[in-house]
Amino acid sequence: MTEYKVIFHIDEINKWKLLLNNVINLLDAAENDKFYIEVLANSEAVKYYDTKQNLQADIDIMENLNKKGVNFVACNNALRGFDIKKDTLISFVKIVPAGVMELVKKQSEGYFYIKP
Amino acid sequence: MTEYKVIFHIDEINKWKLLLNNVINLLDAAENDKFYIEVLANSEAVKYYDTKQNLQADIDIMENLNKKGVNFVACNNALRGFDIKKDTLISFVKIVPAGVMELVKKQSEGYFYIKP
Amino acid sequence: MTEYKVIFHIDEINKWKLLLNNVINLLDAAENDKFYIEVLANSEAVKYYDTKQNLQADIDIMENLNKKGVNFVACNNALRGFDIKKDTLISFVKIVPAGVMELVKKQSEGYFYIKP
Repeated sequence: MTEYKVIFHIDEINKWKLLLNNVINLLDAAENDKFYIEVLANSEAVKYYDTKQNLQADIDIMENLNKKGVNFVACNNALRGFDIKKDTLISFVKIVPAGVMELVKKQSEGYFYIKP
Repeated sequence: MTEYKVIFHIDEINKWKLLLNNVINLLDAAENDKFYIEVLANSEAVKYYDTKQNLQADIDIMENLNKKGVNFVACNNALRGFDIKKDTLISFVKIVPAGVMELVKKQSEGYFYIKP
Repeated sequence: MTEYKVIFHIDEINKWKLLLNNVINLLDAAENDKFYIEVLANSEAVKYYDTKQNLQADIDIMENLNKKGVNFVACNNALRGFDIKKDTLISFVKIVPAGVMELVKKQSEGYFYIKP
């Protein structure tokens, strides 16, 4: 069994369908390997985490991925910039102070970067 | 002589000209270094590999790069999604089951990721 | 104190605001860590370095970042392609022969890749 760590970066809201398909395809291909997967959203892409803006169907897909261990993370700079409050975020989304710092730190921990 | 391994990721069909220019420029700059270069296409970008959709001029550029050692690879999930059959693919294109897994595995083998 | 090396890649001119915000946010989040940051522009993104095309407000932001140690680098293949002369470039911009080679070399030196 091999362990892989992967961080997906998204900053355009219209790339979410593509990104979620990427994550689904990666998990489907995983077989006996262990994956640590984080989805880091900054800039306008964080709007997708806002339950006031999002569609239930997509939240269900994300929740299903989250149950399989995928972390969904939001940049707090972006949340503030779009005036999105923590209490309207999808419940399992985690917040980091600066998304770009998260991209750096995760790569320093051996995560591979993919930008759909 | 230094060896470099590089994986180019493309998932937007309108980025192909830019990507091919990037690869040409990289090989031109290579001098005495040895390059292992793979171009991994997933999502709609795989359409470019379909001889029914592509232009002969671009195939010639790709074939020339392929002769210099550049691997052109298609995601099978994407091929299936766009109903592209193997027998209409450009002849030297290789298929992997999941493009996103290929991006992970190649990075785990020391390939550097570039997304034009 | 931890040292981090980061290379930002930009090849679309309309991504500059996003990229500069990313760099500002990264430096703001840096605290006691030491950052080596390079911004590598190729393709049409190099136009932003041309004082004949750029806005003074953005040059001020870039100059401020440059004073904090951020390197702004242009691909010479792209400069030639858009017929941009060295003497109209923003003064602190450095030129490399091939931007894509710079992306490879910097990653081989331990730089983490981020594509806004």
